[in-house]
Amino acid sequence: MVENNPPEMSEKGDSKKAAKKEAKKAEKEARKSAGKVESSVVVEEDVSVGKYGNYGLIQSNSQSPIRTFTDIRLLNSSLAESNVWIRARLHTVRARGKQCFIVLRQREFTVQALVNVSDTISKAMVKFCSNISKESIVDLEGTVVDVGKKGVAGCTQGDVELLVSQIWIVSVAVSQLPLQIEDASRPEKSDDPESLKIRVNQDTRLDNRILDLRTPANQAIFRLEAGVCRLFRETLTRKGFVEIHTPKIISAASEGGANVFEVTYFKGSAYLAQSPQLYKQMAIAADFDKVFTIGAVFRAEDSNTHRHLTEFTGLDLEMAFHYHYHEVMLTIGDMFNAIFKGLRDEYAVEIAAVGNQFSVEPFTFLDPALVLKYDEGRALLAEAGVEVGSEDDLSTPAEKLLGRLVKAKYDTDFYILDKYPLAVRPFYTMPDPENPILSNSYDMFMRGEEVMSGAQRVHDPQLLTERAKHHGIDVSKIAAYIDSFKYGCPPHAGGGIGLERVVMLYLGLDNIRKTAMFPRDPKRITP
Amino acid sequence: MVENNPPEMSEKGDSKKAAKKEAKKAEKEARKSAGKVESSVVVEEDVSVGKYGNYGLIQSNSQSPIRTFTDIRLLNSSLAESNVWIRARLHTVRARGKQCFIVLRQREFTVQALVNVSDTISKAMVKFCSNISKESIVDLEGTVVDVGKKGVAGCTQGDVELLVSQIWIVSVAVSQLPLQIEDASRPEKSDDPESLKIRVNQDTRLDNRILDLRTPANQAIFRLEAGVCRLFRETLTRKGFVEIHTPKIISAASEGGANVFEVTYFKGSAYLAQSPQLYKQMAIAADFDKVFTIGAVFRAEDSNTHRHLTEFTGLDLEMAFHYHYHEVMLTIGDMFNAIFKGLRDEYAVEIAAVGNQFSVEPFTFLDPALVLKYDEGRALLAEAGVEVGSEDDLSTPAEKLLGRLVKAKYDTDFYILDKYPLAVRPFYTMPDPENPILSNSYDMFMRGEEVMSGAQRVHDPQLLTERAKHHGIDVSKIAAYIDSFKYGCPPHAGGGIGLERVVMLYLGLDNIRKTAMFPRDPKRITP
Repeated sequence: MVENNPPEMSEKGDSKKAAKKEAKKAEKEARKSAGKVESSVVVEEDVSVGKYGNYGLIQSNSQSPIRTFTDIRLLNSSLAESNVWIRARLHTVRARGKQCFIVLRQREFTVQALVNVSDTISKAMVKFCSNISKESIVDLEGTVVDVGKKGVAGCTQGDVELLVSQIWIVSVAVSQLPLQIEDASRPEKSDDPESLKIRVNQDTRLDNRILDLRTPANQAIFRLEAGVCRLFRETLTRKGFVEIHTPKIISAASEGGANVFEVTYFKGSAYLAQSPQLYKQMAIAADFDKVFTIGAVFRAEDSNTHRHLTEFTGLDLEMAFHYHYHEVMLTIGDMFNAIFKGLRDEYAVEIAAVGNQFSVEPFTFLDPALVLKYDEGRALLAEAGVEVGSEDDLSTPAEKLLGRLVKAKYDTDFYILDKYPLAVRPFYTMPDPENPILSNSYDMFMRGEEVMSGAQRVHDPQLLTERAKHHGIDVSKIAAYIDSFKYGCPPHAGGGIGLERVVMLYLGLDNIRKTAMFPRDPKRITP
Repeated sequence: MVENNPPEMSEKGDSKKAAKKEAKKAEKEARKSAGKVESSVVVEEDVSVGKYGNYGLIQSNSQSPIRTFTDIRLLNSSLAESNVWIRARLHTVRARGKQCFIVLRQREFTVQALVNVSDTISKAMVKFCSNISKESIVDLEGTVVDVGKKGVAGCTQGDVELLVSQIWIVSVAVSQLPLQIEDASRPEKSDDPESLKIRVNQDTRLDNRILDLRTPANQAIFRLEAGVCRLFRETLTRKGFVEIHTPKIISAASEGGANVFEVTYFKGSAYLAQSPQLYKQMAIAADFDKVFTIGAVFRAEDSNTHRHLTEFTGLDLEMAFHYHYHEVMLTIGDMFNAIFKGLRDEYAVEIAAVGNQFSVEPFTFLDPALVLKYDEGRALLAEAGVEVGSEDDLSTPAEKLLGRLVKAKYDTDFYILDKYPLAVRPFYTMPDPENPILSNSYDMFMRGEEVMSGAQRVHDPQLLTERAKHHGIDVSKIAAYIDSFKYGCPPHAGGGIGLERVVMLYLGLDNIRKTAMFPRDPKRITP
């Protein structure tokens, strides 16, 4: 590899004109300096001196160049004949005689670049290019060429290629990669003719997450995940919700002490919050009326399944209502629909990118969202031969079956199941005033898996104490929680949503580790 | 207190007409039921039966009423003669003969309501009202009366009062409150004539945070805090940043092991992340280009100061750049200005509400933000008689003095200090390419206190290893971090902002516990 000094270029000028002049001067100098280094390795005169090399470490030199870069996704035949600078990954490189074919990649977008020996491009430059390691970052200058109908196979920008005039290494990748982006990007659909080719297993991916995250599908998944958070917040902010931040370090295990991580806190100890619920409720008791919070939630549950994480991102909300918790439940239903619509309308490119690698069935939903009573759900299951007792919870297989039954009957991948049995909900769940075995609680499902659990909370200290005792909870340990309601508190309801589950199920993916950027489970806390 | 059954009212009807009809019927029934209970305590006939009482627990009865409530902030003389329903806190109540004066409160908004013995309002009803405990939540029906120029002293809605026709208790507060909202809301300005009256000390406030948060200033502070987050995200999202979520549970202490909380993790142990920095950088190495994250940050520092918390909310960002880290530094400066403008333009009401209790000087800033070199800062301090060595850090008093000097000279409460000595920055800070004692790093200040620290990071594994060794760090322990840059990584810079500090300093408050909803410090992990 040829190591040149970085071209010394102009400091930020006051006018574009001055900058251009400076840049020309700088390129001249760069050419000189490149020549110096070249001279020792290149025997014949190199006509490309100063047009290729390695910048060396970009350390923010005061003589930094000013260049406008073009995004690969914007390259198409309308730009034919223009000269562009691109900074991108070298996705693949292939030398063939006097030519070198490079594929450049930015996120999911790729374009071919051609380095051709010519009057101005030396053999040495072509050789230099063919030796650049995959995944290195390069600055490349080239002319956009319309390739006509033949197209460039395998590149997203298929109607053009770049005829290279300069190429500089910005950051070099080691030549032995622990996984290949091409392998990690390969379709994983069972009916795909590619399905027998090399795939990358999940642990290798997660161990080398930095590389794995560069695949088009992963680039899309995490952009879509950001979209879910944005749509959640925007929708709720429009409805008058206030964002709050709740502590993760808490003094007492919130729900009885099971599944909680312990923290050494100076000379004492503390716990990691399993949910922001108690704090959301305190915010309601403190007159914030409608609140949401997005933050880490911790569960010390030794579950090694496709849908459990020990740390995940909770989208939580809580809302005072006037007379009936359905005011809240329907607000949440509308909020989910706003997310689904936003994803459908604003993230079609990302959904398609994920679909290129994984089988993704479009997500269906009804507007307004379908609400079924728990007993209606039980009846549907009974019709299908699965009996669930009136005070029993749904098992995971029953939930999945019910999801399929609901989908078949109503054609929706999202629905709300309302009025769960009191016996299967936490002590702070408000009992149904009209049916002693039911409660004012609901779960929400995507593709047959629970993504949110919520309820009206007991906001009366006396009833709360009774309910806690009924559950065998030591009331003295939750005195602070119970006391929160002593100073007047409006009736309220809310719920907590698992972000990674929502994204996994929206896209129909098979494992929650695909939608957590750096997942945590009982066996993994790295990277 | 009179305990009535809640009035049974109409289920949600299909039309408003039906609902109205149902509501009338329901009120009739409620009157009857109220009468039953009343009969035992009231001797003379109560003409107000069915117009007052306690709903009992609002448990989401299927016969819930449908009412439109009016916000107190919207009440003014233009609504004179209209009939309104209000749900609000009973802020104060005062009986005087055949009258009872109530002040209702919602957040910072208050209005007076008058219960007057009349043909339709009984003495019993007035007595009932005068016995409702402060901070209880009530539903009140009344007619808006224009009080003309005399006004109602002490209420935000001073040009009207409500002539009460119905009042119902929604949620009752205990009569002995650990603090009075009036005391907790009292101005704390040193030149205030009220300054000798009772104030509430900070521990009492924090111990009873639910009550304390109800003050107008606190209602405003946390709405403004939500605004800072929103403006941060909106500005960065517009600039193409992607939101990410980084793990809080990490396998190794990120910066050498000091000041880190340890967590029991199943059979092993782990740590709480002191910053999302390493993960932000990995996202950059993974082609996300520009990322931000908002989340909990943990510091096991035994500092009991006005500006340290053990858990705070970090607003973090990281951005790849082309040639010079100033591309990032100036992006962050612009982002701060967008926040300052947004607060000034959209949160004037909140800023004023805080100003009613605390001395708040308006926050000044320049557009674009002022950037000073570290050495220029040192020179300003030297002129003022304070010498700082060229490789020394600024002490907290020196920072504050510099803030005052900058304010005097440039009239700005915000500025950026660029090019810190390499010696005082972490090992991953990029050295200045032209001056060996400096680094490509910057801090940002509000009212003379640091709110953000940032830098260009070393993105070259070899230099990073050298720098770590130079700092005496065991390289084997940070191998995963160093390896992150082996597969090609663009030059990048970023920084981390403490949310609570930004809000504290923007408002000119004296303690960070005022801007953390449930603050955590070495001595406090409750509530």
